Formats: sequence, C-alpha cells, structure tokens
Amino acid sequence: MTGPRGERVFERMRRGQEALIAAFEAEDGGERFVASEWERPGGGGGAARVLEGGRVFERAGVNVSAVHGERVPPSLAQRHPGSEGQSFFATGISLVLHPRNPFAPAFHANFRYFEIGGEGGPWWFGGGADLTPAYPFEEDVRHFHRCLAELCARHSGADYPQFKRNCDDYFTLRHRGEMRGIGGIFFDELSPPGTSDFERDLAFVDDGIDTLLPCYLPLVRRRRDAPYGERERRWQLLRRGRYVEFNLVYDRGTLFGLQTNGNIEAILMSLPPYAHWSFAFTPEPGSPEAQALPYFQPRDWSPVTPSP
Amino acid sequence: MTGPRGERVFERMRRGQEALIAAFEAEDGGERFVASEWERPGGGGGAARVLEGGRVFERAGVNVSAVHGERVPPSLAQRHPGSEGQSFFATGISLVLHPRNPFAPAFHANFRYFEIGGEGGPWWFGGGADLTPAYPFEEDVRHFHRCLAELCARHSGADYPQFKRNCDDYFTLRHRGEMRGIGGIFFDELSPPGTSDFERDLAFVDDGIDTLLPCYLPLVRRRRDAPYGERERRWQLLRRGRYVEFNLVYDRGTLFGLQTNGNIEAILMSLPPYAHWSFAFTPEPGSPEAQALPYFQPRDWSPVTPSP
Repeated sequence: MTGPRGERVFERMRRGQEALIAAFEAEDGGERFVASEWERPGGGGGAARVLEGGRVFERAGVNVSAVHGERVPPSLAQRHPGSEGQSFFATGISLVLHPRNPFAPAFHANFRYFEIGGEGGPWWFGGGADLTPAYPFEEDVRHFHRCLAELCARHSGADYPQFKRNCDDYFTLRHRGEMRGIGGIFFDELSPPGTSDFERDLAFVDDGIDTLLPCYLPLVRRRRDAPYGERERRWQLLRRGRYVEFNLVYDRGTLFGLQTNGNIEAILMSLPPYAHWSFAFTPEPGSPEAQALPYFQPRDWSPVTPSP
Repeated sequence: MTGPRGERVFERMRRGQEALIAAFEAEDGGERFVASEWERPGGGGGAARVLEGGRVFERAGVNVSAVHGERVPPSLAQRHPGSEGQSFFATGISLVLHPRNPFAPAFHANFRYFEIGGEGGPWWFGGGADLTPAYPFEEDVRHFHRCLAELCARHSGADYPQFKRNCDDYFTLRHRGEMRGIGGIFFDELSPPGTSDFERDLAFVDDGIDTLLPCYLPLVRRRRDAPYGERERRWQLLRRGRYVEFNLVYDRGTLFGLQTNGNIEAILMSLPPYAHWSFAFTPEPGSPEAQALPYFQPRDWSPVTPSP
C-alpha cells in the first residue's frame, strides 16, 4: 500500500476536500454536497462529494481517491520505464465547478501523488488548475493567472511560465485548434521522480490546495448575479459542449479511468450538467461571443512581478 | 481518384441523400435542411445537409462525402495489411436523427464504399443502421429489427444474425456495460474485400438506402405527438449523454475524423443538440425509465420468418 509519506499526502487531500466543500457550500447558500464512497476492485477507493442544482453551482464535485495495486497500470509504466511489474500507490484530489450563471467561469483543479515500488521507490506529485469561462473578462483572467504565478513564486522549483505552457498545450482541443478555456497551470511532475525533496514538494501542494479558493471564488462572486438571458445560456452550453469534447476525447485521466473500469460516476463527475451542440455555429462579428474566442488561444497573461 | 464503379456508388449516395432529406423535411413540416459543402485539404470533400430546431426533429443531418488520397490512412492500413502506401477512394452517406419528442427514437445509419489502389484493387462496402430510443417500446424495437432482417433476407450473403451481433458489440459503451440503444445491423465489410460481387453488394446497399425510411418513419409517426413533461425530457437528455459518450470515446468514424483533421462540423453533426449528465442517476425501480434499461443489453429480437 503506502507508508507514512503516502499517508500524510492522503490526509492532506482529505482535509483539503473538507475545507473546499465547506467553502463551496457556503458560497452556494442553497444545496449541500452529497457523499458517495466507492471501492476499486483492484485495491483502494475514493470519496466523491457532489452538489447538483445549487443556487450558484449547477454542479460542483470534489473527489479524493487513494488506489494501489500489485502492478503499475500500462499507461503509467509507459511514462516511467523500469516501473513495469512493480507495485504502485496513487492518491489525488480533483474538483470541478460548473456555475449556473454564464458569466461565472467553470473551474477545475487536481493534485495527485504517485509512488512506485513502495516508499523506497520513485515518487512524484502532479497537478494543475485551469479556468473555463464562456465569457472571459480580462480582469478575471489576469486575477486567476496572477494568483497561480504568485503561488509558484512562493516555492522554489515551481516554474509558472513552464506550468502555464504545459496547461495551454494540455487543454487544447486539437480538432478545433482552440483551448477549452483560458488555461492556468499544469504539471505531470512537480519535480523529477526520485530526485526531489518531499517536504518541499508537499509544501507546494499544501499551499496549492489553500490557494484554490482565493484564485477562484472572487471571480464567482463578481459574476454570479449578473443578469443573463437565453442567448448567454446557449453560449454557455455550447462552450460546455467543447468541455465535453475535451474530457471525452483527450483527457488522460478520464480515458485512463474509462479504460480501467474506474468508478464511472466519479470519473464523469467532471462533465457539465447540460451541454449543447449546434451545426457550424459562428458568433456574429463584434458580438460578446466573438470577442470571447481570442481568449481561447494561448496568450501571455504576464503577471507583473511585484518589485522587490 | 476512382472509376466508373466508384462514380456509380457516389451517385447512388447523392440520390439517396436527396430522397432522404425530402422525406425528413416532409415529416418535419416545419424547418428545412440547410446545405453546407466542404472540401478536404487532402482530396475530395462532402455535402452536409442539416435541419435544426424543427417541429419533429430537434436535429437531423444527412452527409455525403467522397474523399481520396495518395496514401491509405493509418487506421485503414492497419485493418487491411498490404494496403500501405497505396492510393484510396472512399465515399459514404451517413445520417442521424434526434427527434424532439422523448418517446420518438433517435436513428443513425451509414453506408460506405472503399477502394484501395484504384479500380483494379480491393474494394468493399461497409455500413449499418441502429436505433436509440430513450423509452423503448417492444413493438417499435421488433418493427425495426424485422425490417432490417427482411432487408438482409432479400440479399444472399447479407447475414442478419451476424450483422446484429456486430451491431450489439460495436455500439456498446464498455465503461457502462450497456448499449447506446437497441442495436440494429452493422458490418465492416459486406463481403470480403476483392472476393465479392460488386453488383450483388451494390444491390444490397441500394435496397438498404431505400429501406431506411420504412424502418424508421413509422416509429416517429407513432410517437411524435405523445404528451411528455420535464421528467421525460430529462431522461431523453440523459440517454443523449450516453450517445455523446459513445460517439466521442468509441466511434471509429468520429475519432478517425477528429484525428485526421476532417470537417469538424460534419463529423460532430451526429451529436445530439442537447445532452445532460447527473451524478449517479438511478431510475426508480418499476418506473418507465427503469423498464427501459434491459433494452440496452443485447437481446434476441428474433424476427419471425414468414412461413413459406
């Protein structure tokens, strides 16, 4: 299974989950999270917390899992040569928020920890956080990226420019030549496996979990009560269609879960509650919807570093 | 490109498209089909016809394409050893109907023709037709399967029991252990490539295209005016979520198109206009929704062969 190190990470994830759902429930002020525990036939399991049909959040989900097995799964072995046939342990927290108001952005974040061959073997952290507005506001986008850049700046080895490029790249729908949203940060490995400093990496993840709320909640508060109509709702659902396309066609975590008989509901918790497709829909030039499109291309949000 | 044989097939597809959209427009009685022609950068192109927001059909699409290239694409080469590096020609018709009324079933069908290395090389037909009701009615399911079994019975070499098994298998969402709908027929190769009788195969496809309307339209007519409310609409959208999952995760045509920079709108024309996901939604035991579920498992619809 794991040892004291893995236990510490897992406990941090569970504590993060509790704090996050408390904050999201308070923000919603309507619905509560429902708990759903699941076991993985191969070893381990998870705890999903889902809120649906809220006043602010049409769907919110926070999932923590800890799984282990006698043999590293193929997708992991492929990325880590030499790990074939060894045992593994993985724990992670992932969250997704789909607000009701089309002006409030959707949000996704994930932190994960892997061990191969027990506590003596290689281990590493992965993770990321990204924002998916239907109507991007420059001040919101800048706030989000500044918040993540500042998180990285607080920790040596956390390279915001690189993590941002990873994110732009990862969340691209190649068949449409556009990003799912406006990016954020993404890293497969916070530090190279086995060569890194566990306390340093855990400190980043610890801070990262705490930083999700100040990165995101101010944006929801700004937009949650903005008036909107059918037109804005339709555009939101169309953008959510892109979200579905990304998650089902490209997202490694989703595909890995589907192919390995993971818990379907926990995996697909990330999908939006409603989505829309319309043939060759093109926003009118100059419309707010047309103005949104350039935001879905990689762009330098160059957070200004405070002068020393 | 192709020769007289390929031209004949292509003309048959175009003629089929015209007849089908005329019939669907008449059935809808509200909206008209909109034409959209597209070119494939690598060679060839297509003609999409789409109706959205109709009285009967929330979305209907009929697409005909004819594409060619100097080199067989990898996915095709993999299935046909020896074809690597040769030229290819492919033409096909595909259609999808998503009715508005939750009691009226969605319908998909496709016929396609391939040539490798020009008219002297291997060629074959593929195709299929399948039905996706949210609320399956046994009489409708039996009508649909009987209609397809009778089509096969009219043509030597068209093996309904085998084609039905192919279809049950192909349209299974493995991660959920259920089919997208109630099946139909599906065949990668009507007859083995190169060994078959072109006139015989074309006669089957010719009859197949004509048979789509009597297989499907009676079911729409029976259900299009059935009263329904929010509950039935929600179930319809949930089942359409499964449709989206199938098309984006498993459908070979969709994935091939996305990976080869095909025409995105023509490829994703098959998606439903609206879809819904809800965490761990389980129909109440005994409810009409719960009664629908066993239909989404392979089942013998054994059309009774008329006694001689």
